[in-house]
Amino acid sequence: MTLSLYYHPYSRAAGTLWALEEAGVDYDLKVVDIMKGEQKGPELMSKNPMGKLPTLVDGDVVVTESAAIALYLADRYAPHLAPALDDPQRGTYLRWALFAPSVIEPAVMAKHSGWTVKEMSAGWGSFDSMLGAAEAAIAGSDFLLGERFSMADVVFGGTLRFMIAFKQIESTPVFADYVARLDARPAFQRAEARNAAMRQSLGLQ
Amino acid sequence: MTLSLYYHPYSRAAGTLWALEEAGVDYDLKVVDIMKGEQKGPELMSKNPMGKLPTLVDGDVVVTESAAIALYLADRYAPHLAPALDDPQRGTYLRWALFAPSVIEPAVMAKHSGWTVKEMSAGWGSFDSMLGAAEAAIAGSDFLLGERFSMADVVFGGTLRFMIAFKQIESTPVFADYVARLDARPAFQRAEARNAAMRQSLGLQ
Repeated sequence: MTLSLYYHPYSRAAGTLWALEEAGVDYDLKVVDIMKGEQKGPELMSKNPMGKLPTLVDGDVVVTESAAIALYLADRYAPHLAPALDDPQRGTYLRWALFAPSVIEPAVMAKHSGWTVKEMSAGWGSFDSMLGAAEAAIAGSDFLLGERFSMADVVFGGTLRFMIAFKQIESTPVFADYVARLDARPAFQRAEARNAAMRQSLGLQ
Repeated sequence: MTLSLYYHPYSRAAGTLWALEEAGVDYDLKVVDIMKGEQKGPELMSKNPMGKLPTLVDGDVVVTESAAIALYLADRYAPHLAPALDDPQRGTYLRWALFAPSVIEPAVMAKHSGWTVKEMSAGWGSFDSMLGAAEAAIAGSDFLLGERFSMADVVFGGTLRFMIAFKQIESTPVFADYVARLDARPAFQRAEARNAAMRQSLGLQ
């Protein structure tokens, strides 16, 4: 079975390539031209009524939300990238995989949009708390689970890398060392090469 | 082993009781007086640098983020509440469990705070797309996975119920029927009774 990823290199689907490469699955890319609004066209909308990328199709199953796709790929196809169900580290793994879309993403957007957030009301708390928690999660260890790389690093680290690259989060020595370790992963490099090739084939660079 | 939940009945930890009751685990509640700012005190901050509830402690493991806690409880203690790792429905399960904190929560907050959101930039898209996708996820079936109740319903349905109760989301027949099915769960009723008893013991009602 080949998985299909609805994709554009300028969308969050670019990050999903890394998850697919780490999982070692076969996949093809269905390019959705977000410059022309194709994400709201009938094909994608029938799969994902949000009209958003990434959207993964695996047989009869549709998976959306970047973090859910990555967790799914690990659980179903690459269990070595996730703690076993009876391993207490499963809690740490899920904690930080969920932290990226639930806390980092909205905290960054709120901060850079100048929105006034009531910390008690927002599930994601404050930008500064988010930064402190994210740094504490990786300080003193190679990866979120210590020496062991996992799919949580793809989700959390991929979000962190993106936010640093786009100057939404200021890098620190802890963040920089962590991202450098992630950048060294062969699967990340394969994903980036494919993203670059896709940008070129679409005339985007 | 008894799990400990850092808790206040006026926090998202109130919803976590339902997940604990569904999982059928033993747990105790460590009340954090958010009216007095205790969530920023040293005890909780040493576990969760966000200073947020819910925070679950299970031996050496700390789990934060409501959805991560619920997914963890199902994976580790109540596997009947989650599709097996090799079940394609695992993708649907993760999709909607992640949708609640990543899409419903920020979309609702943005809408009711009057923030102008660029749909292409925000991972959570638009409020109206969120509503449409949420309704499509449950229309025509009892639960997110069809006839089968799962922990994804606790996360997604719990968020939906809360937003409807606080008039952040307008109910529809589809939403109302779904929430009524969830309300009928004995575990939900046990959780609500415990939340009510806690509110009373804290002099909050």
